[in-house]
Parts: sequence; C-alpha cells; structure tokens
Amino acid sequence: MRVGLDVGGTKTDAVIIDDDVHILARTRLATGWGVDAVGATIARAVDLVCGEAGIAREDIRSVGVGMPGQVAPGSTRVAHAVNLGVRELDVTRTLEPILGIPVRVENDVKAAALGAHALHGSGSGTMAYLNLGTGVAAGIVVEGQVWRGAGGSAGEVGHISIDPAGPPCRCGQRGCIEALAGGGAVAERWGRPGALPVRDVFDAADAGDALAVALRDDLARGVASAIRVLVLTADVDTVVIGGGLSALGDRLTTPVAAELEAGAEASAFIRSLRLRERATLLPAGSPAAALGAALVGRTTEEVLAHG
Amino acid sequence: MRVGLDVGGTKTDAVIIDDDVHILARTRLATGWGVDAVGATIARAVDLVCGEAGIAREDIRSVGVGMPGQVAPGSTRVAHAVNLGVRELDVTRTLEPILGIPVRVENDVKAAALGAHALHGSGSGTMAYLNLGTGVAAGIVVEGQVWRGAGGSAGEVGHISIDPAGPPCRCGQRGCIEALAGGGAVAERWGRPGALPVRDVFDAADAGDALAVALRDDLARGVASAIRVLVLTADVDTVVIGGGLSALGDRLTTPVAAELEAGAEASAFIRSLRLRERATLLPAGSPAAALGAALVGRTTEEVLAHG
Repeated sequence: MRVGLDVGGTKTDAVIIDDDVHILARTRLATGWGVDAVGATIARAVDLVCGEAGIAREDIRSVGVGMPGQVAPGSTRVAHAVNLGVRELDVTRTLEPILGIPVRVENDVKAAALGAHALHGSGSGTMAYLNLGTGVAAGIVVEGQVWRGAGGSAGEVGHISIDPAGPPCRCGQRGCIEALAGGGAVAERWGRPGALPVRDVFDAADAGDALAVALRDDLARGVASAIRVLVLTADVDTVVIGGGLSALGDRLTTPVAAELEAGAEASAFIRSLRLRERATLLPAGSPAAALGAALVGRTTEEVLAHG
Repeated sequence: MRVGLDVGGTKTDAVIIDDDVHILARTRLATGWGVDAVGATIARAVDLVCGEAGIAREDIRSVGVGMPGQVAPGSTRVAHAVNLGVRELDVTRTLEPILGIPVRVENDVKAAALGAHALHGSGSGTMAYLNLGTGVAAGIVVEGQVWRGAGGSAGEVGHISIDPAGPPCRCGQRGCIEALAGGGAVAERWGRPGALPVRDVFDAADAGDALAVALRDDLARGVASAIRVLVLTADVDTVVIGGGLSALGDRLTTPVAAELEAGAEASAFIRSLRLRERATLLPAGSPAAALGAALVGRTTEEVLAHG
C-alpha cells in the first residue's frame, strides 16, 4: 500500500492505494502556510488517511507528495512553491525521519499526470495531462512514466507564444498560451476583484460583456493551441484537462471544442488529427493528483506488472 | 553490416555500416521518377554501395530505406511520396524478393533523426532533428529510438500556428511555422523564379531588398519557434538542424541565433533554457539521413549494445 498527497494552496488531498491502484481511503485537510506548517500538514495527512483506512503506518511502502514548484528529476527537494510559502523544502529529508517510510516528491502537475493516466489513460500509452490553473502546464506520460526530458522543461507548453501581438506574459514574452489561458493572466486582464475571477469572466461573457467575451475567446484559443502543440509535437493519444479551471465543466469545454472545430474546418491536416475526440475533461473532484502522487517512484517493473 | 539509403527527390545517398555504426562505404546516384524507377534505384544503390565496400550482398543483415512521404508505424509501405512521383510503394514486398535481404522503410525525417542522433546526439538521450526543407518537420529520438507517438503526428511542429495574422499555410491554417520557415512557402512568397529560391532571398536581403529582409526575418522567427516548441514540450537536450536549408550554414544560423537571443533577453524563463547552446547545425554533406536509414529497425537490444 502507498500513500499519495496532493498538497495544494488551500487543501491537501490524501489517498491510500493498494498494489492494484485501487483507492482504499481518501481524506482532505487544510494546508498550512510556510515550510514548517507544510511539513506538519504532510505528516498529519499521512496519519489521517491511514486512520481512515484502518491501516498501520508500518504497512505503507511509500509516501508520494505532489507539490506546486520545481522538483529536479530524481530530487528529494521542492523549490519555489510560492503558493505554499515555501522557498525550498527537502521533503524526503524532513519527512522520512518523522514517518519512518520512504518519502518521494514530485511537481504537482507531473504527479497529476500520472494519476490521470491511471484513471483515464488509453491503451496506447501516450497521454498528456493539461493543467489549467493559475498557470498552464502539461505533464506527458509515456508507458506509465512521466516524460522527464533533459532539463525539466517537458510539458511547459504555457510559455509557447502563439501570437506576437498577444498580451504580455509574466514570463516576459508576448502572446504565450499562459497569457491567454492561465487563470492568473485572465484575472489580471479582467482587473475586477472576486474569489473566482475566471467564473466571473464567464458569467459576464454570458451576459454579453465585450471584454469578458474577448477574454473567454482568448482562453479557448489558448487551450486549443495547447492541445494542438501536444499532439503535433509529442503525438499524445489523449489530452486530459484538469486543474482549477476544469471545475467550469461544459462552460470551458464548449468554447474550446468550438475553437478546435474551427481549426479542423480550416485545415484537412488538422481535421485528420481528430483533436476534439482526443481531448477530455477530468471529472470534478477527481482524485487524480493524489493518486498520481502515490504512484511517484514506482519502479518500471511495478508499472508493467500493475499498469 | 547494414545498408541505409536516403532516397531524395534528385539524389539517393547510400551507406554501408558495421555493427559499431561506422560507415564502411558511401555512394550517391540519381533517383528515378515514379514507382518502378524508384524501386530500381533502391536495388541499384544496394549493389553499388556493396561493390564500393567489396562486400557480398549475403553479408548484409538489412536494408533500411528513408523516403519522403507517410510511413505508418511498423508499416512496410510509403504513401504520398509526392517528390518521387510515388503514390504508394510497398518497399519491403517489392524489394525483398529482388535483394534477398530484409528491407525496412521509414519516413526520411525520422530516419535522418536516428542518424543525427548517432552522429551528434548528446549523452542524455533526448534529441530532436529539425528538418528545414520544402516543409518543416522534426523527428524526436529517445534512447536511440524514434519517438513514435499515437498516430504518426509526432514532430509535426511545422503546422503549429505561431501568428494568427501570419501568412496562409498550404495546410489551411495561418501563421504556421512552415508558412514562415518552409523553403516552399518562402519561395512562393518571394514569387521569383530561381533554382535555389531561399538562397536568392538571402542574397537579396543582404543587398537590402525589403521583402527579402522580411522573409528572412520570418524564417528565423519560424525556426526559433520550432526550437522553443521542441524544448518546451518534449524537453529535448539538443536540436540538430538539417535538411536542404541547412546548406546555408552561418547565413541561416546567425539570424536564428539572433532571434533566440532576443527571446532570451525578453524572458528570464526562456533564458534559463539556453536554447542557443542547445541548437546545432548538421555539417554540409553529412551522411546522417542514409546512416539513420541503416539503423531503422534495429532491435532495442542492439541499440543498447552498440549505441
């Protein structure tokens, strides 16, 4: 059995899975702020989910932690987890002595990609998980493993510019996919306060507000471009869309599908890729991110044996 | 020993390699036009290169053929090899009975990617070969094997649109990388006759012609974007540039490097990717394409044993 945690800016989602990747228990708790509180949240989440399942800590083979921020390939440390108030945390070194279980850490999008693959991956074995949150990034899963690439930039499609006349991106470029489709960029361009700014933009667009309609169009254009980039570069079989914006459900997928459809009408080549059929939305409340964290660090043999 | 052929629109390049991927002999001949003449060219190229090396046909373990056109994963057939006047050719079924040797076929860009990897691949094992010819396409090599993906669109970065206000592409979209950086698109936008239209454009740009300068700028922008897309999606360690336009040498790489440099100046994130250092040009006359064809179909065991 393995524990997986998705440590988010407000909530931490915890699951415990068996060797066949079935979820035995799941629990959620509030995430603390800052390096010490985040460490305490992780330890507490493991105990809570073990208690929920009635399983002793000694029976857990590993704890996998998915966190926003940079995790170098094979590293035990997360850096720049800005949303959590963590500049740097050696998750393994901090938590292993406390828990007495092997602890691994992974970037949250890459972990969620593993989980989305386990839950929704198709047979062909190549899948991208496109995370639409404050930023835009993807994780590519090949034969059950996260595509690692050379230096950690795999799946960073958010910073591909698709319009030299587009809005400036916080990365310094113009017209990046993230500048069009990132929740943070949309909120900034909208410029009005609100707890769920992208939802506000969609509401205002429905009511006919011109700026909101333009922002929604840009968002759909950005997401459609991300899907095209993933298929035209890595030729993934499926693009599973998750992240905070995926809670918009049909309100998100309808304009994205329309944008993909328009592209397919313009180009026989693009049409042949059947992009609309390849894109799918993660269901609301999906445990993909925590489940994926639990899968982090499984050996190739285990992946092949248990899928 | 294996034979590899790069069957191009005008010339066929043939090499014979040993198990350590050393080239024992190389020869070139004119390519015939149409399905029968192309078949005859392949048979003749095998005999010529065997003669050149003083090796009997019986000692050849396989013949690999790289050809422009579509080759489905694992297929023995090439389709739509327009430049060769071949609508469809089952290369294996046609040539194996004549040669008495196992014959494999691969798309020429994917074959060249394998060869570029053997000649110039770095240690990390992820490399992209960016082919700048009439069109723009890339082949991605992972652990010595061509990245296959789900449906054959891996590396088709030429049809990613990077500018909604850009020139129309023959694929039906606008502002595709190929519409900016493909030799065919540049020639069409230049609109003046000439055997080497892109070289003519570069000459005219050097002489100050405004249209030519704009076309050269667009070409550099397209190539730089292709490099960014390959690194930001697949995170390849190195991008090796080949194809017809690579004969322009420094005249091509200088504006591309300037474009990458401008991007790096604008964005700390892009700067951290060190794109300029990751991009490299295939030397003129490189045998990469034919060498790569010879490597097509080696088993994983052979790749691991011999690199």
